[in-house]
Parts: sequence; structure tokens; C-alpha cells
Amino acid sequence: MQMLKNDILIRALLRQPVPHTPVWIMRQAGRYLPEYNATRKRAGSFLGLAKNPDFATEVTLQPLARFGLDAAILFSDILTVPDAMGLGLYFAEGEGPKFERPLRDEAAIRALRVPEPRESLGYVIDAVRQIRSALGNSVPLIGFSGSPYTLACYMIEGGGSDDFRTIKSMLYARPDLLHQVLDINARAVIAYLNAQIEAGAQAVMVFDTWGGALSDAAYREFSLEYLRRVIGGLHREWNGEPVPNIVFTKGGGLWLEDIAATGCDAVGLDWTVNIGTARRRIGSRVALQGNLDPAVLFSDRATIRAEAGKVLRNFGSGNGHVFNLGHGISQFTPPEHVGILVDAVHELSRPYH
Amino acid sequence: MQMLKNDILIRALLRQPVPHTPVWIMRQAGRYLPEYNATRKRAGSFLGLAKNPDFATEVTLQPLARFGLDAAILFSDILTVPDAMGLGLYFAEGEGPKFERPLRDEAAIRALRVPEPRESLGYVIDAVRQIRSALGNSVPLIGFSGSPYTLACYMIEGGGSDDFRTIKSMLYARPDLLHQVLDINARAVIAYLNAQIEAGAQAVMVFDTWGGALSDAAYREFSLEYLRRVIGGLHREWNGEPVPNIVFTKGGGLWLEDIAATGCDAVGLDWTVNIGTARRRIGSRVALQGNLDPAVLFSDRATIRAEAGKVLRNFGSGNGHVFNLGHGISQFTPPEHVGILVDAVHELSRPYH
Repeated sequence: MQMLKNDILIRALLRQPVPHTPVWIMRQAGRYLPEYNATRKRAGSFLGLAKNPDFATEVTLQPLARFGLDAAILFSDILTVPDAMGLGLYFAEGEGPKFERPLRDEAAIRALRVPEPRESLGYVIDAVRQIRSALGNSVPLIGFSGSPYTLACYMIEGGGSDDFRTIKSMLYARPDLLHQVLDINARAVIAYLNAQIEAGAQAVMVFDTWGGALSDAAYREFSLEYLRRVIGGLHREWNGEPVPNIVFTKGGGLWLEDIAATGCDAVGLDWTVNIGTARRRIGSRVALQGNLDPAVLFSDRATIRAEAGKVLRNFGSGNGHVFNLGHGISQFTPPEHVGILVDAVHELSRPYH
Repeated sequence: MQMLKNDILIRALLRQPVPHTPVWIMRQAGRYLPEYNATRKRAGSFLGLAKNPDFATEVTLQPLARFGLDAAILFSDILTVPDAMGLGLYFAEGEGPKFERPLRDEAAIRALRVPEPRESLGYVIDAVRQIRSALGNSVPLIGFSGSPYTLACYMIEGGGSDDFRTIKSMLYARPDLLHQVLDINARAVIAYLNAQIEAGAQAVMVFDTWGGALSDAAYREFSLEYLRRVIGGLHREWNGEPVPNIVFTKGGGLWLEDIAATGCDAVGLDWTVNIGTARRRIGSRVALQGNLDPAVLFSDRATIRAEAGKVLRNFGSGNGHVFNLGHGISQFTPPEHVGILVDAVHELSRPYH
């Protein structure tokens, strides 16, 4: 096992001392980069890109060639797991992800099985191995998965939704069926993330994109409980190295104490939360990741530096901060603004360490 | 001045004793009702409906004929004020509201003026008068407006948005320009709501639909501050009767103390907040309105009653609760489920009073 040349992401996630605050960007390999769009064009489609380990490796490395980022994140899709369950993931042009066979009746739910990652998600596991090899121990590789509830949203709605009418109808009228889906999803996510760790992922993140659209009681019962199970099932070290994990519920600012109590190493914050307040609430138990408004990257050099500085100042001195946006980067972001941000975080965070 | 036959909404907003918890439903006059759709068809278009006081009166009264609601709410559109400013409101089929002339340059912003409600919003003021007359002092009439920031979102984006890229670019790069828009909007909203009160509205509500998409610091500077100004400028009584007001920031659960500190009488809650927790945080200062997940109305009689009961139990005994959904009712709601909800609130809330 070689030592990482830059391990400050791992150390920050474990709340250990670092020389400056590490930074990576959610969706850092993406459509705002012309080189990403060129690779995607060669791949023919988004799924052609995501399901081919060579292409996935290529785009994962692209932002690292441009910017001094402190981590790589596996390029993949959030919906690989339900696709491996046989739901038939596809992308309708301009409409986002959809499933050919969403879960619309009890029989479909009863037939659902936990996929074996090495069999049905081998392209992801291969991509993790290839990316690790290509990274050459420069920076850590983050693996990821959607949360059990967020996966269930897509599996039951059949695609994106602005009111979650189908899954919430099930949640209120047939909670037993939704719990069955979530139980399978939780076991599938554990197997998937552990397979990523075994293949070389050095940290993992669970994206609970839609838990924040639930009521307080429903969030606790249908999302948080399964996040807790996932965290409880993950490898915490591999090959003698710690493998920290991060839980991110978008819109989850009201539940930070509960998210921290899942046992995770770090909590992701969206931009609506003041990171200083969040630190006072849960910073003695977990590291915090976030949380610049992605829209700041539409402004200018001076504003980007000033707003990054505010996030760093709000967090304050000491350990346990990983800088990120509060949501995935917009496709309309000028790439050079990402470089301004990364450099600003490194430079402006030194006095706090 | 005649006495209201049913004034429990007003009393609950003022945290006075009531025999049972009052209930009304955001967007209660709307597309889930076949009679609404019939009137809209006769009116020819949504704006033909909203801008005609006869039609507006007709649809405002429709839900009251079906259900034992404790209030009427003016049927109107959230964007009447910017339309009166000359931005040219229109509805593209299936796309929601749009403006012909969004604020896209400094000159357009410098030219913006506070409209005189009696001149350019006479159709709303006439509708308030007609509805009051038609209600015959049965239940109170609630007037409303969008918040300064929410109006600015539409004025600057030119329509709905999922990332608020245009207004947030202005917010971060040219905050002075956005403040100028918000200052005018705040003065326009005050004049508009006071004109509604003078015409007969017995309570008013400010809808801050998009403030919750801001960062903590930006919410305070660009939405909350202008909500505070609006509340400070409103009539608190008219013709010797109190006129309570309600502020609702969707996704504002992190800022409840700050919203209560605007000086409003009541705070609206979306469904992500536990209303019992909200009461402990701010219930000694303001009444609370909410907050059932609208998706509960897709379920069944037993579930609707059980979930309504949970909201009532979470609030607990005592004064200061107005029952509502945590967001506008969905067009896909079976109308009879609204009747089940209204009756359940009246019946199940008695032990708490």
C-alpha cells in the first residue's frame, strides 16, 4: 500500500490537523468542462460514458488536470443500483433519468432483489480500479451512492418529480411496501459502497438528494433510519487505512443532529445552512463538508474569493472542514471560476490551521 | 361594521382562545375542483379569470360551498404587482407564469416605479370588495401578496427557475441593483396589501416562496430584511378591527426565530418542520400556521385523519394554531379528501382547546 501524496481530504474528514482546508466540488467532472463534453460526444451518450470504465476514468481525471483539487470523485450515475436491479435506466433527451420498469405494483416490489455488485455493477468496480491506478496515489478517490430513499424516489416515480406524488402516496397509504423497497435498497447500497471500497475508493459519500422533501416524521422513518443502516454496514477501514464516509441530505438543515447520530464521519451541508451554526450544533462529533452557494461561481474573481472567505470564516479555526459547494456545480459555470475558488480556499484557509 | 359569524381564524392568529382549531387550505380555490375548472373555461384563460372580479369572486367562494373552511382567501395571482409595474405577465401553456419584459439591465431597474394599487390593480381591489360582500360576514377574507424577494425572482428570471441563475448572479455581482428592486417591491407590497385591507381583507399573508433557496446570509439580507419592512408598513387594524398578518417562507425552517422577529402575528410552516418543535422555538411570540404534507391528501380517509391528528398532537394544547397544508394543494387531490381533512381538524382539535 503506497502512501497518498495528498491525504488532507482524509485527514480533514477524520478531524485531524491539515495545513489548509481541502476542497473538491460536487459534480466536478461534468458539463461545465469542454473536455467532458468532448468525451461524452465520443461516448455517444451519457450512459455510454458512465458504463465504460475507460471513459469514466478519463472524465474523472479531467478536473484534476485543470485545478488543484484535493480529491477525485468516481464519475458514475446515482441510479446504477436500481438499473442493476433490472429497472432499465435510460435518459430521455433533455428530461433527465428515467426507468423503463418503475415499481408500480406489489408484485414488482416483492420481486426486487439486492444485486451482487461484482456481477451487475462490474463496470463501476472496474472504473474504481482504473481510476485508482491512474491517480497514482496523488489524491484520494471518493466513491458514492444515492441514499436508499433517494433511489426509491426514482424507482417508484420512474424519473424525476417535483411533487413526489407516487412515492408519497405509497409512503402514506402503504408504508409497509415502501419499507420493503428501502430495506432492499439499504442492503444494496451497503454492498455497492463496500465493493467500491474493496476496489480502491478511499472515502465514500451517500447522496440523499430528496430526503429533504419529506415531513419531519417521514424523514426520520423513511430516510434517516436507512442512512443509519447504511453507515452501520460500511467498511470503516480497508487494507489498514481508514475509509471515512460522508452523509449529505439536501435540505436537511433541520436534522443535522440526527444525521450526525447515524455514526457517519462527516455531514454534507447545502448552502442554506450557516456552517458556523452547523459546527456549533454537530462539529464536536463529525466533520462538515460544504457549503458555498453554487451560484457564487457565476459572479467574478473578487466575489468568489470574498464568498469563499466567508464560508471559511464562518467555520473558523481548527479541524474538520472539507470545502465544497452546497450542491453540484452548474453546467453554466465558467471553468476558470473553479480555479479561482480552489486557489482561494487553499490560500485563505491557511490562517485557520 | 358587522361582526363575523365565524371569527376563529382571526382569534387563532391573535393567539386567543377558540373552540376548535381553524383550518383553511393554501390554493383552496383551484384546479383540483371541477367547478373551478368550469369557471376557468368560461373565463377563457387563467389571467381572464384572475383579472375579472366576478370570476374571482365566484371561484373564491367555491371551496366554501363544499367544505366547512374557516376562511376564504382572495383568488388572485402572486405576480399581479410586477404586472402592474409594466413587466407584462403572461402564461405560456403548461409553462407557468412569464414576463414579456423581465428586468435584464440597469436601465429597466432604474425605471421601475411603485404602482398605485387603485389605479393599476383596481381589479384586485374590486374583487376584494365583491368577495367581502358575497361572504356576508360568514368567514374572514384573507388577502395576500408575494414577498419582495419572491416577486424579484420572477421579475429578474422572467419566469420560474430551478436554479435562480439570473437573480443570484445579480445578487452576488451587483447586490446594489437587487436592493433597488427589493426596495421598490417592498413599498409596492405594502401599498398593495394595505389597499386590500382597506377594501375589506381581514387578514393578510405574505408568500415568500423562493427565499428558502438562498444561503443563510443572503436570506437575511435579501429576503428577511424586506419581509420585516413589509410587516412594519402594514395596517394592524382597520375600522377598529385587528388585521393579523402571516409570513410564510417555504423552506424557511432554519430561520423561524428570525421570521417571528419581523413582528408578524403568525408564521407559516412548510411540512418539513415539526410543528411542536416550531412552537417551542417561537410559539410564545407568534401563532403558527400549517403544516400537513399536501401528499397526505392522496391517501385515504383513515390516513388523512391520522396524519391530521399527528399535526394537532404535535402542536398540543392551547392557542395559536391555524391548520393548513405545508404548501398549496395539488391539482391531483380528490376533492372529497379535503372535506375529510376539514372535518377531522374540527373534530380532533376540540380536546386541545
